[in-house]
Amino acid sequence: VNNTPFYISQGLPLPLFTDFYELTMAYAHWKSGTMNLPAVFTLTFRSNPFKGGYTVAAGLRSVADFILNYKIQEAEASFIAELKGVDDKPLFEAAFIDRLKNTRLACDVWAVPEGTVVFPNEPVLRVQGPIWQCQMLEAALLNIINFQSLIATKATRMVYAARGGKIIEFGMRRAQGFDGAISASRAAYIGGVHATSNVLAAKLFGIPLAGTHAHSWVMAFEDELTAFRKYARALPDQCVLLVDTYDTARGVNHAIKVGVELAKNGKRLAAIRLDSGDFAFLSEQARKNLDAAGLHQTEIIASNELDEYLIQSLHLQGAKIDHWGVGTKLVTAQDQPALNGVYKLSALYEGGVWKNKMKVSNQTSKTSNPGRQRLRRFYNASGQIEADLIYEESECPETIKHICDPSQLNRTKKIQPEWSSRDLLEQVISDGKITKLLPSIFETREHTQRELNLLHAGHRRFENPHEYRVGLSPELLKIKQALMAQLGGE
Amino acid sequence: VNNTPFYISQGLPLPLFTDFYELTMAYAHWKSGTMNLPAVFTLTFRSNPFKGGYTVAAGLRSVADFILNYKIQEAEASFIAELKGVDDKPLFEAAFIDRLKNTRLACDVWAVPEGTVVFPNEPVLRVQGPIWQCQMLEAALLNIINFQSLIATKATRMVYAARGGKIIEFGMRRAQGFDGAISASRAAYIGGVHATSNVLAAKLFGIPLAGTHAHSWVMAFEDELTAFRKYARALPDQCVLLVDTYDTARGVNHAIKVGVELAKNGKRLAAIRLDSGDFAFLSEQARKNLDAAGLHQTEIIASNELDEYLIQSLHLQGAKIDHWGVGTKLVTAQDQPALNGVYKLSALYEGGVWKNKMKVSNQTSKTSNPGRQRLRRFYNASGQIEADLIYEESECPETIKHICDPSQLNRTKKIQPEWSSRDLLEQVISDGKITKLLPSIFETREHTQRELNLLHAGHRRFENPHEYRVGLSPELLKIKQALMAQLGGE
Repeated sequence: VNNTPFYISQGLPLPLFTDFYELTMAYAHWKSGTMNLPAVFTLTFRSNPFKGGYTVAAGLRSVADFILNYKIQEAEASFIAELKGVDDKPLFEAAFIDRLKNTRLACDVWAVPEGTVVFPNEPVLRVQGPIWQCQMLEAALLNIINFQSLIATKATRMVYAARGGKIIEFGMRRAQGFDGAISASRAAYIGGVHATSNVLAAKLFGIPLAGTHAHSWVMAFEDELTAFRKYARALPDQCVLLVDTYDTARGVNHAIKVGVELAKNGKRLAAIRLDSGDFAFLSEQARKNLDAAGLHQTEIIASNELDEYLIQSLHLQGAKIDHWGVGTKLVTAQDQPALNGVYKLSALYEGGVWKNKMKVSNQTSKTSNPGRQRLRRFYNASGQIEADLIYEESECPETIKHICDPSQLNRTKKIQPEWSSRDLLEQVISDGKITKLLPSIFETREHTQRELNLLHAGHRRFENPHEYRVGLSPELLKIKQALMAQLGGE
Repeated sequence: VNNTPFYISQGLPLPLFTDFYELTMAYAHWKSGTMNLPAVFTLTFRSNPFKGGYTVAAGLRSVADFILNYKIQEAEASFIAELKGVDDKPLFEAAFIDRLKNTRLACDVWAVPEGTVVFPNEPVLRVQGPIWQCQMLEAALLNIINFQSLIATKATRMVYAARGGKIIEFGMRRAQGFDGAISASRAAYIGGVHATSNVLAAKLFGIPLAGTHAHSWVMAFEDELTAFRKYARALPDQCVLLVDTYDTARGVNHAIKVGVELAKNGKRLAAIRLDSGDFAFLSEQARKNLDAAGLHQTEIIASNELDEYLIQSLHLQGAKIDHWGVGTKLVTAQDQPALNGVYKLSALYEGGVWKNKMKVSNQTSKTSNPGRQRLRRFYNASGQIEADLIYEESECPETIKHICDPSQLNRTKKIQPEWSSRDLLEQVISDGKITKLLPSIFETREHTQRELNLLHAGHRRFENPHEYRVGLSPELLKIKQALMAQLGGE
């Protein structure tokens, strides 16, 4: 177990995992003499996924691994050198290629700890360094954090719906490619899933494994009862039988026969698995029959295109399901398969001072916040989280009295003296080197759970969740308004 | 360019990319003495994605690479040996681990050529070999083929909507992990996309690169016009300017200034890119102003959460957009992010004969077809495709007279004497070794185009597409019905 994403440990040419325009911009900066301009880029989410009330930030450890292992080596530089422009001539001058060669990153990175609950427009990650280097990282950082945060958040919703029942993730066959499966297993585990079926994710990250058997096991023998008996004989201590290969009611009866036989040998049929049909009805029948046969400890697992809404609905119907196998709808986050994180230039060091930068847009949702942002979270007397403040690094947070909503100027929240607070962005990397021991996946999983417990229930409900208050310091709001006026009127 | 997926060329432990239950089943087969039972597994899609009329099969080359590079080595065997069951004792016996070690696959594989248009319930891929080996491949084969077929199909729809305009894919920052980006770029290119922004996909697969610049380029300079001029100076032969950093109308004017300056130097502003706002309105204004300045050859690219429906709608509105940049909605197939391919046992060699196998279900859509299936396609006199026939390997296709719909028994199609036909499944691998030179990605891309041209337009429309006729031979239908009666009444 090394916690490192496989594409890093296996030596993928990381610098090429980038958008083509980062290369042309790096080149244009080189031609313009602005390549090493110190810049600050801020990664934020524009909205919470699934119309939910929060987002769980995940993928930060993978990002750190990516940055620490980043180096433009001979092979990558040669590929860039071979890129052709018009008339089949090289696109870039040879001196630029030489400039790229042997580059390691000289960036500083601040990030919220993985597993932290975050909200729209908050700085989740901040990269500071030569502008071309910050840019080269854009696609990789967004790819990693968008996807892992999406899946971690989805997992917390399913775990919430399961109310103490275990969620087992087995989505690899429908995931979006190999890393779609592997990173999803990692993020889902951070989000509170109990185990995965993904053997490689278990090896890479130490996630517990779980599984049953396939329909083909049953079909490989002359009849279902024989197949169940053979499986139970091979794995008597963790036998989970899939009962719907031919007919669920009959399958349950066969499983009960095998369960009774196991019990005679001092063993226990661990569970049966329902994989199709009406779960409310079938699970009630199965529970009754299992109990009648004395198999009170044999649990019932259900799987078939489940998501948090179906799990919740089955609970409301009183279904007798102990645990939930989820696949496609978790690992692809089917109802919203992409998170909308963006990575925007927010400050530039010119002429000896930091200048604030922002992207203006006719679409308000696409207007970014300026500055070298910091993020401070306030906790009320009972320890629950109350509001978050985005402020500029040049400000002293203790002197800030109000949190201002930039989209509704009359919506200002007074910071109460009894609130405690702490800054969420922690420096992880300095000048390309790690500065902080990163937590294990198990610690991150626990941190996520603690974070969720700090939320009011209203932020966790699926329908119309309560909106968490996030705003700017009065000073940062002033900076933003001045920039908008200036840029809008350029 | 080697066409090999990076997770293979980089030495990922392929045998561990499998579901845990494949290991427990392999073990139970070993305990039961049935490990080497010859089996046939058939991979099919249950329905076309996006409520469309067809699916483009893709990923087959990646599957071949996966199988050819598959070997259970010491490291993988050790990991499996360390898996714990109850009381922290090893889950598997040591003799089983020895049996696994140094396994290479002894499977035969038939597949439709990559880029072939296929339909629900057709055998897209068939694996024949020792049952435990066929099973170990299940998750990897489904993962690769489900995702790449999904994205290739999505790409063909966007290309269709663009009516000759180019589609440029730049989804990596919102893709589901690294491979979600890389495999998507590959599949989208097969589907007819013109270029990608993904530099690594360009290196791995030879896909052409395209790109513009980011908002941060503009924000890094004192004003937009200066930023445009510097970019044009660095890349005068392929300058595409993004015009919405502050205000699109003003951005277009700045781009026109730079375009006129380039023209004076004998160069051409390649394009402007709109990235927000009302494209119908903005593109018309921009076209008018570009033309008025004599920049008739400067093209207009649009990007902003585009999919096939928006592209079609903008066409209907007469928007003056030449090319389309698409990201999230292509690489995650946002409206349906997973294809529903399944891999089912369909025959087993026992007692010297092949026995047909099938999965029955109360849900008709989950009932599979039995047998060592072959797939034959019929073409009418004008060369367009008419109907597909699934038959059993033991049958002589020339003697089959009808195509029978298994779900509607009165729906039988007579095979016309004037139709020509050919079998679609080709053997790719024999006893674990390649038997066929696989086409390059460029040949596959052309094959896809030819395949789409064989479809009636009714199969390609987005709303209520015409359903293509696929059925079983009368003999295979009889086999299926007999099995259903037997298994249902077991």
